[in-house]
Amino acid sequence: MKVAYQGLPGAYSEAAILEYFPPETQPVACESFDAVFSAVQDLQCEYGMLPIENSLAGSIHRNYDLLLQNPAAIVGEHYLRVKHCLIGLPGVQINEIRKVISHPQALAQCEAYLRRLGVSTSATFDTAGSVKIVRDQGDRNQAAIASRRTANLYQMEVLAEGIEDDPANYTRFIVISAQPVVPTGDAKTSIVFTLKNIPGALFKAMSVFALRDIDLTKIESRPLVGKPWEYLFYIDFAGSVVDESAVHALENLGEYALSLRVLGSYPREPLKNGF
Amino acid sequence: MKVAYQGLPGAYSEAAILEYFPPETQPVACESFDAVFSAVQDLQCEYGMLPIENSLAGSIHRNYDLLLQNPAAIVGEHYLRVKHCLIGLPGVQINEIRKVISHPQALAQCEAYLRRLGVSTSATFDTAGSVKIVRDQGDRNQAAIASRRTANLYQMEVLAEGIEDDPANYTRFIVISAQPVVPTGDAKTSIVFTLKNIPGALFKAMSVFALRDIDLTKIESRPLVGKPWEYLFYIDFAGSVVDESAVHALENLGEYALSLRVLGSYPREPLKNGF
Repeated sequence: MKVAYQGLPGAYSEAAILEYFPPETQPVACESFDAVFSAVQDLQCEYGMLPIENSLAGSIHRNYDLLLQNPAAIVGEHYLRVKHCLIGLPGVQINEIRKVISHPQALAQCEAYLRRLGVSTSATFDTAGSVKIVRDQGDRNQAAIASRRTANLYQMEVLAEGIEDDPANYTRFIVISAQPVVPTGDAKTSIVFTLKNIPGALFKAMSVFALRDIDLTKIESRPLVGKPWEYLFYIDFAGSVVDESAVHALENLGEYALSLRVLGSYPREPLKNGF
Repeated sequence: MKVAYQGLPGAYSEAAILEYFPPETQPVACESFDAVFSAVQDLQCEYGMLPIENSLAGSIHRNYDLLLQNPAAIVGEHYLRVKHCLIGLPGVQINEIRKVISHPQALAQCEAYLRRLGVSTSATFDTAGSVKIVRDQGDRNQAAIASRRTANLYQMEVLAEGIEDDPANYTRFIVISAQPVVPTGDAKTSIVFTLKNIPGALFKAMSVFALRDIDLTKIESRPLVGKPWEYLFYIDFAGSVVDESAVHALENLGEYALSLRVLGSYPREPLKNGF
């Protein structure tokens, strides 16, 4: 089975695939998020794994936009703990490191650690790629920040693990497929809709769920640039889109919403450490 | 008057200061968002200008976290249109460019343009800094992506303007100060609160505003890592915290919320192009 992801081998999206899918799964590296959708749509890959929300950085709007532009459905979710490692050449000691390279977001998440280490830093395009650079340049004073798996892939050494300043660093991934699923058991449904920005509009929209005791697990408003007075809303609710109460709630919401799209129903993953 | 911002001269945060404040204002560059809060708290600067939400990238949770950790109040808001320029050495023609450097987010926002140009790309720490690198290295085949102002500051040439793939690129900034204000006229108030994650909790919280005809302009839920079943909510509502209806709504919300913090009331800026 093939699963598409954006990034290079060793990327956190690849780690999410390896945690979520059975061992024989083949992760397929793609250059962009668009390419992940194309791979799933053209049936080159059965599934795609996409980051949708990070506990520190927030929702990844780009992937919500692509979900709206493409017919693919959400068929699963996975929470990944993002654990950064300091990675150097084999045999190197941590006190030899003078310079650390990685994606700016990874460098920012390890800012206090790097300050204590007293090193200079430099930005790269992605975490996994920075390990390859350190290996290829062969400089014992240089290290990268990436996942433990990347160190193993390039036969490099983990000098320190869990070096992020805030350990509450989780990314929620979604699994997409050309075919929607009908989950049995504990399920979650993701929808996107637009409302006219009139007082009380969102309250009415939420009442269609509250009046049917449907629990919301995520809500987010996003201004629609170029469309004054319209808002885009992301909502995740507990339950499947085929549950009778959900059917009625969505019918009811359709009376208020300017547009409404069900992105998918899928098995709900238990909360990990509250995220 | 001094106003602190994170970044280097030419950064988009500095541009927000120059648009929002009177001409004689002195922008003060800080290394980090924390340093902006410190400068305001220590009264080295009267105000700080911080990005809080981007139309493409979403909320900047880091600054919400810092607002909760610091006593500073929000006293204003400003919407800035983020317009990227391709910037090279003076006299260079666009067809000479082979390599483009900038912050990864700026490179990503100009991806289609750069592909058409057929150039290689390389990541840097910030947009303004990339212009300095191009100037210092003196390579005619290299260009940077940053604001028009950065080009002027370093006496470099704008080869193309508005090169972002999606022109709907706005950042909402907030102005912070050690002293809260009581706005007169059209106002907005930002609050943060936590709720027990029980079915209907958010609906009850929203009803305190809806029942008093108070319009919400932003709502966002954020899972609290490490605290299973608790959520953090960001809400912006129309009106000032001293309005009688707002006073009652917040008293009412205090009955449900586990914690509640008013971040500030401030003059509301008219919507620009819907954001």
